[in-house]
Amino acid sequence: MSEVFVGIDLGGTNIKIGLFDSQVKLISKTAVATEADMGPEVVIDKMAQTVEELLTGEGMSARDITAIGIGTPGPAKYSEGIIIKSTNMPKFKNVPICRMLNEKLGAPVVFDNDANVACWGEYAVGAGKGVKNMVFFTLGTGIGGGIINNGELVHGCDENAAELGHIIIYPDGRECNCGQRGCVEAYASADSTARRAQEALEAGSESSLKKVLDQTGTITSKDVYEHLAAGDKLAREITDGTAKALAITCINMLHVTEPKRIVFAGGMIAAGDVLLNRIQDFFDEHIWTLKAEPVEICFATLGEDAGIIGAAALAQHAHQQGKLK
Amino acid sequence: MSEVFVGIDLGGTNIKIGLFDSQVKLISKTAVATEADMGPEVVIDKMAQTVEELLTGEGMSARDITAIGIGTPGPAKYSEGIIIKSTNMPKFKNVPICRMLNEKLGAPVVFDNDANVACWGEYAVGAGKGVKNMVFFTLGTGIGGGIINNGELVHGCDENAAELGHIIIYPDGRECNCGQRGCVEAYASADSTARRAQEALEAGSESSLKKVLDQTGTITSKDVYEHLAAGDKLAREITDGTAKALAITCINMLHVTEPKRIVFAGGMIAAGDVLLNRIQDFFDEHIWTLKAEPVEICFATLGEDAGIIGAAALAQHAHQQGKLK
Repeated sequence: MSEVFVGIDLGGTNIKIGLFDSQVKLISKTAVATEADMGPEVVIDKMAQTVEELLTGEGMSARDITAIGIGTPGPAKYSEGIIIKSTNMPKFKNVPICRMLNEKLGAPVVFDNDANVACWGEYAVGAGKGVKNMVFFTLGTGIGGGIINNGELVHGCDENAAELGHIIIYPDGRECNCGQRGCVEAYASADSTARRAQEALEAGSESSLKKVLDQTGTITSKDVYEHLAAGDKLAREITDGTAKALAITCINMLHVTEPKRIVFAGGMIAAGDVLLNRIQDFFDEHIWTLKAEPVEICFATLGEDAGIIGAAALAQHAHQQGKLK
Repeated sequence: MSEVFVGIDLGGTNIKIGLFDSQVKLISKTAVATEADMGPEVVIDKMAQTVEELLTGEGMSARDITAIGIGTPGPAKYSEGIIIKSTNMPKFKNVPICRMLNEKLGAPVVFDNDANVACWGEYAVGAGKGVKNMVFFTLGTGIGGGIINNGELVHGCDENAAELGHIIIYPDGRECNCGQRGCVEAYASADSTARRAQEALEAGSESSLKKVLDQTGTITSKDVYEHLAAGDKLAREITDGTAKALAITCINMLHVTEPKRIVFAGGMIAAGDVLLNRIQDFFDEHIWTLKAEPVEICFATLGEDAGIIGAAALAQHAHQQGKLK
């Protein structure tokens, strides 16, 4: 086999690993528990061993690897290959993960944050295929982001660009986990969507969601979309609040980096067309009329494997660009 | 002389032209009336003739030109060198300005919109010197913008990126000239700043500005800053509205492309520190606390020659990068 890329998605709970061919098609994959409390030496050792096992299963060895890509949440000095610290992996402090993995497997390693990696995956082989300018949002507990400008990820002066969840759309609005007020994340993440519904119920709004809150003590964004499908009025209002916040953010991104396509990923896209259509409605309502060519707004297509696919695709890109050390 | 760059700022009223050396230092400059109603052939002919006169005055000829840069407002296909149409020059429709000027002067021509050109000038030899990531705003009748990412201008999928005046910061807020509501331009351009003051006076606000309105029938942003300096309360409120809108926009840009420096230019920066300090105050008040390294917010330094300096600097950059045709 001419080229083999390894994609690694390092999370606090699991490490997902995939082997990919020269076209970033999956050859095989696996997942192992991170066991982050064992410390970086043990975790990275296990990571390397798992890669070798996958390779052995395909009749290959570490010598066949063209390049390895890894994604993990920050803060990190990605370009230097160092995890500075990690919320989910407290023992990971100033870990030179790229060098350590390179020493074990012998192949060059590229490294970026999890949102950028997923963004690159969609760009290279998913919903962003065929464009050169893309914006990417992950709608989960928070809202993460990624930006492709002219075929390259935008990293910013200190590798903290594309923190798109913290674009302020309602100055002095709802408090965000980041300490700011009015961030899009404070309205439109899965958590914020659920929280706004719960607050409305607690303030006395009538809704079929009241029963869920009474029975379970909490509301999830999934509950909101289920009750929306059943015709609940509050669920509709909450969804509209989410969709409008995302639409305004899309408009702002159009005016900043002018993407050809905007891709939403993350748990909340399970809501389906009912969410996507409302984002498009609010976008059409609030956008200027000056630009002829409309931006395409769509959902991600890579699903749960986005992390390993994106990491492998990033490794492939670095290889193609001759950027590997 | 080894390298000579020509910078041209094509406006509806005047054409400004400058000759620059290899370091983008001004050798000589001039300005002539555009007389746009004579049509593109005549205007571009005059442009070329004026360049040749400037060169003759320095003992040079068109053969000495290394490259020419031009800036003009859009809409245009900048990368193809074509002015599609122009509000201020109605006879300019689908004008291949780069090819026409190249045929007359023999040197390669680079072309971009006026805001990008001014942004590049500040980046290359002005307030942005020394950084690789910068955001630029012009505060005039409207608000224009430019973005430098990793040492290059961001153009977007259709060359309409960095329309930073149309970032929405107050959804459903004040109407903007572009048809959207709540754009930063609708609050913080020189015109909007003046208009908000005038509206407040017409609504009965007490202010020393009332006398200006009564006497002249209108308010300018200059009036606002003069009365602010004299301690007027309404002028302070209006300035705070402008500064807060700009600060929120700076925060949003920090989270999108993560510039190291944000540069404000345009007529309104004549207001001086009283405006800059308030932008910084609101920025500090609304920004998250997660990022250690602060972005620098400052005013442009190139003044009225920004257009010709930027155009020449863009030509120099294209020359250095080997991008000239």
